[in-house]
Amino acid sequence: MVQAPTKPLTLAAFLELPETKPASEFADGKVTQKPMPKGKHSRLQTKLSNVLNDFLEPQKTGLAFTELRCSVGGAAIVPDIVVLSSSQIPRDEDGDIADIVAIAPSLTIEILSPQQSQTRVIKKVSHCLTYGTQLGWLIDPSERTVLVFRPDQAVEILEAPTARLAMPDVLDAFELTVETLFGWLQV
Amino acid sequence: MVQAPTKPLTLAAFLELPETKPASEFADGKVTQKPMPKGKHSRLQTKLSNVLNDFLEPQKTGLAFTELRCSVGGAAIVPDIVVLSSSQIPRDEDGDIADIVAIAPSLTIEILSPQQSQTRVIKKVSHCLTYGTQLGWLIDPSERTVLVFRPDQAVEILEAPTARLAMPDVLDAFELTVETLFGWLQV
Repeated sequence: MVQAPTKPLTLAAFLELPETKPASEFADGKVTQKPMPKGKHSRLQTKLSNVLNDFLEPQKTGLAFTELRCSVGGAAIVPDIVVLSSSQIPRDEDGDIADIVAIAPSLTIEILSPQQSQTRVIKKVSHCLTYGTQLGWLIDPSERTVLVFRPDQAVEILEAPTARLAMPDVLDAFELTVETLFGWLQV
Repeated sequence: MVQAPTKPLTLAAFLELPETKPASEFADGKVTQKPMPKGKHSRLQTKLSNVLNDFLEPQKTGLAFTELRCSVGGAAIVPDIVVLSSSQIPRDEDGDIADIVAIAPSLTIEILSPQQSQTRVIKKVSHCLTYGTQLGWLIDPSERTVLVFRPDQAVEILEAPTARLAMPDVLDAFELTVETLFGWLQV
């Protein structure tokens, strides 16, 4: 974790800083850096975003993005994957996707890394839900479990292989089971 | 983690096994052993249970217990601390506390240890809430944060020093802030 210097940083000033790898995030006046991705994290992030876009792109209803910085509610966070509906995707004058996304995604997805603070990840998910995100998935590869967060509902724990992940409106007709998700770890 | 042998174990058979240190728990047919407690965990577990009992014992409304095995909903789990109201405390014929507690406590408290699977701890808390527990506190010393779980409500994230922990009915008149709680780590 990279701590901010003693002078409090504003969101605007943070957004002027050079990008880092892994991405840095800003919340509660503090800058933290995401963990270096490992094998399981990378596989799930890549495959899941691909599968989501294979579903979304043909029907032009939305898109999945990896490592997209979302500036919302005074924080600038970078979920592992977000899904934006078509109407949420900000565009430049020429129709390209804009570089600044100041919106809470429909779905925020976090894939837990070894040694990562799960409390901090839950805070990120919870922040998105506060500002309009419909659903948050917290994927724990080591426990083969998905925690599903919704605004105003208790966390749902999915571990049965046949359990289906809850979907936001934009993925209404999409199906994904716990077994399929973690099956992607087998390469 | 100690995995169960290949033959599936029943709750009754698990309860016949000798006790282990740290305690073993049983859920979903699997036996797991709690992590070896470390300094911060031990300090918070001891001090918090003491403070809770200093409040509860004089008014005889309930008691806090550390490492009490609660057999409920087909699982036998051992929260770091539970609070039982007087009417929940099972008694022997002679009025002593019984050894077998088959009840979901009013409050279940977990203190996160380094390297412990937070997903697995959230599963324990969630299991209690399913079977009647009013509140679950998940205390993360490294993040100075408390996650508060309730049935049918989104998780509440407490990190502001002045934030007050939500209380079950039996602790209605008790007050505890985040600052006081983590202040106990200073010895």
